[in-house]
Amino acid sequence: MGILAQRRSKLHNALVEQKQAELVLIPGAQPPPRNYAANAYQPFRQSSHFLYYFGITHPGFVGVILPDGRSLLFGPQPTLDDVVWEGPLDALDVWGERAEVEEVRPIETLTEWLHEQTSDCLYLPPYQGDQILRMARWLGRPAEEIQKGASSTLCEVVNAQRAIKSSEEIEEIERALTITAASYDELMRSLRPGVTSASLMARVMRRAYEEGVDIAYPPIITSHGEILHAHGYHETLEDGRLLLVDMGLEGTTSYASDITRTMPINGRFTQMQRDIYDVVLASQLAAIDAIRPGVTYREVHLLASHTIAEGLTALGLMKGEPKEAVEAGAHAMFFPHGLGHALGLDVHDMEDLGDIVGYGGEGMRSKQFGLNFLRFARELEEGNVLTVEPGIYFIPALIDQWQKEQRCSAWIAYDKLSAWRDFGGIRTEDDVLVTSAGSKVLGPAIPKTIEELEAILGKG
Amino acid sequence: MGILAQRRSKLHNALVEQKQAELVLIPGAQPPPRNYAANAYQPFRQSSHFLYYFGITHPGFVGVILPDGRSLLFGPQPTLDDVVWEGPLDALDVWGERAEVEEVRPIETLTEWLHEQTSDCLYLPPYQGDQILRMARWLGRPAEEIQKGASSTLCEVVNAQRAIKSSEEIEEIERALTITAASYDELMRSLRPGVTSASLMARVMRRAYEEGVDIAYPPIITSHGEILHAHGYHETLEDGRLLLVDMGLEGTTSYASDITRTMPINGRFTQMQRDIYDVVLASQLAAIDAIRPGVTYREVHLLASHTIAEGLTALGLMKGEPKEAVEAGAHAMFFPHGLGHALGLDVHDMEDLGDIVGYGGEGMRSKQFGLNFLRFARELEEGNVLTVEPGIYFIPALIDQWQKEQRCSAWIAYDKLSAWRDFGGIRTEDDVLVTSAGSKVLGPAIPKTIEELEAILGKG
Repeated sequence: MGILAQRRSKLHNALVEQKQAELVLIPGAQPPPRNYAANAYQPFRQSSHFLYYFGITHPGFVGVILPDGRSLLFGPQPTLDDVVWEGPLDALDVWGERAEVEEVRPIETLTEWLHEQTSDCLYLPPYQGDQILRMARWLGRPAEEIQKGASSTLCEVVNAQRAIKSSEEIEEIERALTITAASYDELMRSLRPGVTSASLMARVMRRAYEEGVDIAYPPIITSHGEILHAHGYHETLEDGRLLLVDMGLEGTTSYASDITRTMPINGRFTQMQRDIYDVVLASQLAAIDAIRPGVTYREVHLLASHTIAEGLTALGLMKGEPKEAVEAGAHAMFFPHGLGHALGLDVHDMEDLGDIVGYGGEGMRSKQFGLNFLRFARELEEGNVLTVEPGIYFIPALIDQWQKEQRCSAWIAYDKLSAWRDFGGIRTEDDVLVTSAGSKVLGPAIPKTIEELEAILGKG
Repeated sequence: MGILAQRRSKLHNALVEQKQAELVLIPGAQPPPRNYAANAYQPFRQSSHFLYYFGITHPGFVGVILPDGRSLLFGPQPTLDDVVWEGPLDALDVWGERAEVEEVRPIETLTEWLHEQTSDCLYLPPYQGDQILRMARWLGRPAEEIQKGASSTLCEVVNAQRAIKSSEEIEEIERALTITAASYDELMRSLRPGVTSASLMARVMRRAYEEGVDIAYPPIITSHGEILHAHGYHETLEDGRLLLVDMGLEGTTSYASDITRTMPINGRFTQMQRDIYDVVLASQLAAIDAIRPGVTYREVHLLASHTIAEGLTALGLMKGEPKEAVEAGAHAMFFPHGLGHALGLDVHDMEDLGDIVGYGGEGMRSKQFGLNFLRFARELEEGNVLTVEPGIYFIPALIDQWQKEQRCSAWIAYDKLSAWRDFGGIRTEDDVLVTSAGSKVLGPAIPKTIEELEAILGKG
């Protein structure tokens, strides 16, 4: 049995155990219209669930797992007009063999076929409007009812299966990381004052096109690391400032990488930059060291937060007891986001399934600022892959607001912060596998210590 | 009055004339989810209608023109969390000033506000599923009824207005063409056997990022020009073959360019390539020469088709009377697509409004193969901008099918075609403004004759 058939069989068996062996509908995605229907956003990205269970990267297909465990693939039969416009196209049965299914049927017959079925139809919550409208037509239900009709059992079973990465999946993530590492190497060597963020982005894209891969998300390339999701590539990079790069690629099988590095644009850290950098790095290394099966990622996040609070206290930017500061959420003014998230076919793996992925049986998200952005909190299992990405940021609007409210003033040295307002932000991120013994940082090493970075920057 | 307010005023006045001065809803687009809601396809592309009437390139806004002619902008008021994640953001009233509206309101109040209105609500047909679902919520109607509820009067009025380009719009198209020309210059100079299509695509993207513009559609960069919409960049370009490049950029204001050139990969046309190239070029020049107000683009398409049939007859690939061949649609085996389409904010301008744009009062699309793909057929008016892009292709699957059926065998020399099966395809495309006197090719000259191309190819 091929790997796709095995995955579907495992899914089917899990549903049988839950007494939910109904029909499972796993639709592929469609190209999303950009400024009109035929001009789609590019390149097309297949639904990760469909990729995982049916393996086809092209649009136009719908997968079905039958209550008896067999699988069906609905898809297009190319016409002569299709061939004129798109070139030679594979016949539907060729796609069926690739997807390792027992039977193929023309996509035009899907609606009628679904209406003939007597089993319940289980599906995951669609997250694209076009998919919701298509499912409403297929199932003959109002579009407004489609999302709430998704099966929570199916979400749980799919999450449990996809959360544990096989050795083949790890290899795919490491393949994406290898290209990412090469891209960082090129980028670091070419960095110098006066370079534009656009030209760095162009280098990332050139390598992606040449390697035949795609970016997993819009790369962040900015000297304003304090803007967590800084958009666009409109900067000329200045002497004295830091550059934060957060980028990941998707290999040909769509497994993602997600790496962040922060580096001095002129190749040499200032003392202030060095001080903060070492706190962030210590926090990340402590977190990686704490990762093992049975520990919750919430605990690891709090450990990383504690290391940050300790480091900032030693630098005089925080005060009092770090333990109390973290309990009060004071550190979150500097580290306002979560330590990391699951990584796999999606850079935020299975984010479309909601908090079941990161919280599952571990209760709800915290309401505390900072901790509320932690996407993954549950107990770690062997085979999980997570990002570990602490950061320290000086966000003027946030500092001003907290200072005005004298929020957490027992732990924040507001009087010391005026010299740091223009600092920016530092984050370091790696992709980590939970192993039986603890953890393993995936992919080739990418310069991370101050010494390693200073040795490579500007050497291109 | 600013240009955006003028455009809305003109739209309002046209609706008053039609006794349709109702409320007009012009929503901006939202970022379309890629593999989960927060990971959108990038870069975000605003709805062209919203750009035209409200001018805002960011997502999250909805424009309204009131029955009395005043305009309202609904949009987001940034929160502190937004600033932490996205950086400093403009307040809603700043956006309102840019959009030249009389009043702004928080986007959260849109649904309630719409429910309070007594006028009919006119809108254009939405083409994105997410937009359809949002409109269903705003208007309190089932999603399935949204598209058929669009106003055909509004479509006509908007089309009439946007079809005639102002001098400012022409300047924007020419700005996109200037960058496109520079991109072609770089690409032509760097072309040689062994270069990959990925590396050429990487050059296009690098320039786009450096210029701060976007591609208007996925560029076609292929030695298989006979595949009309060849996807992907996976070729190593071979000595002796032709390269077809079809690419366009969108400037910062989103006005598009759309240019095609075909060139020998080794820098020298073979005699066969030269023969076909000159027929395509003659066809394009004849078409450009025929363009003037009052002529229908269907006539121009047929003239270009006639020139192709004549040329292919002279080369012995067709036979009989070219006039009869074109009437029978025989030339369409070699030239199976339309001569061109409207160009503006969209590369296929307003394609979301349907055939009203290209056919309007000129009847329906032909059912004849080839002519059925003509997107624009109507009478030309001063201020229209159109692409002129004839081509000749040798499409093995199409030749085989027609030959099997002996289709149009009075005009096609099937016995001569075996030597041409692997030829590929040639297309030449420029963007042309209809002037009072005739026509004007927009933008800087891009090498187009055999002499011009051979002079620049491989000279980088």
